[in-house]
Amino acid sequence: MSDHKRPASAASPIHDLISHRWSPRAFDGRAVEPEKLRSLFEAARWAASSYNAQPWSFIVATKDDPENYKKVLSSFVEFNQSWAKSAPVVAISVAAHKMPHDGSQNRHAFHDVGQAAATLALEATSLGLQVHQMAGIIPDKAREVFGIPENFEAVAGIALGYPGDPMTLPEGRLRDNETGKRERKPASEFVFTGKWGQVSPIVK
Amino acid sequence: MSDHKRPASAASPIHDLISHRWSPRAFDGRAVEPEKLRSLFEAARWAASSYNAQPWSFIVATKDDPENYKKVLSSFVEFNQSWAKSAPVVAISVAAHKMPHDGSQNRHAFHDVGQAAATLALEATSLGLQVHQMAGIIPDKAREVFGIPENFEAVAGIALGYPGDPMTLPEGRLRDNETGKRERKPASEFVFTGKWGQVSPIVK
Repeated sequence: MSDHKRPASAASPIHDLISHRWSPRAFDGRAVEPEKLRSLFEAARWAASSYNAQPWSFIVATKDDPENYKKVLSSFVEFNQSWAKSAPVVAISVAAHKMPHDGSQNRHAFHDVGQAAATLALEATSLGLQVHQMAGIIPDKAREVFGIPENFEAVAGIALGYPGDPMTLPEGRLRDNETGKRERKPASEFVFTGKWGQVSPIVK
Repeated sequence: MSDHKRPASAASPIHDLISHRWSPRAFDGRAVEPEKLRSLFEAARWAASSYNAQPWSFIVATKDDPENYKKVLSSFVEFNQSWAKSAPVVAISVAAHKMPHDGSQNRHAFHDVGQAAATLALEATSLGLQVHQMAGIIPDKAREVFGIPENFEAVAGIALGYPGDPMTLPEGRLRDNETGKRERKPASEFVFTGKWGQVSPIVK
């Protein structure tokens, strides 16, 4: 098991769970304990959502269930398949577009799936696991493969497991991405007050 | 300062930060220290996002800046104004719909704003603060009041501060909501494998 940490170079103190969460592509092959997997989805369960609609679902498979694992992998774009196939667990998140209480459109469906996914990723960090989320999936393929019904939509891919050695990744961009400094724009570019673009004194 | 905790009745162990995060509407009046506010937005900054596009912005105001505070409050729906006005800090999250690297539509803009907001809320929990997010805002009003440009969109409201006494809320639904058991559907209703609706053994 590798112990490849890349804590955020935070400009202000933040909780360790948050600074240590990142999105690696190198996984150790060993299986994730079922009780840890349960805790990950339990954490997602307690995320906040508009009207408590909980619009998230997850279609998940572990490598010891090769048929279902392959089905999840097949709904990732090829590039993501190339590295995600080393993860012992893969999943697809799905959003419910209708509000359960009145059938209206849930404007925050993707937003709240994001909250559940972020919560799952932080729980993973707390258990020594890592999560790499992928925008690069083929939603129509997922719909077909899993029979995702109308008014639901595949959102993102998830690869998860224990940290692996970045040197197991192919040389080049993939490996380089794992070792450089993690980058974010400064808070002054996105925390405003009074009007759009006016930097809040909080982050000055 | 109240110490009104409502930990999740989790079916599997989850990290304390996650079980203790909830969405109260009763706030203590006292101001939030500027360094804590900085840490909240710093935490949001390190959330994951598709292509690292970081599509989130926040327009924020504290009560000691009444003009800007009122502007934020005015973009909440009336019901939310009625209780959020007791929070020392209010904000609006904003999503960028275009990818910075090529101007294409960012399918995950709302999703990733949700990830940043969830991360902010967990950082708040770690600092003894609380966050209540609101779907109930008027995005067009926010656009007008703050001059939010085309290709950006107001997403959700945020009220934050120190915990207050639920008995300060008006009698009835508002107060009752703060004291009952927190509810979520069981994981077996949203963690599937192989096909839609087929419960994963992980959560059986």
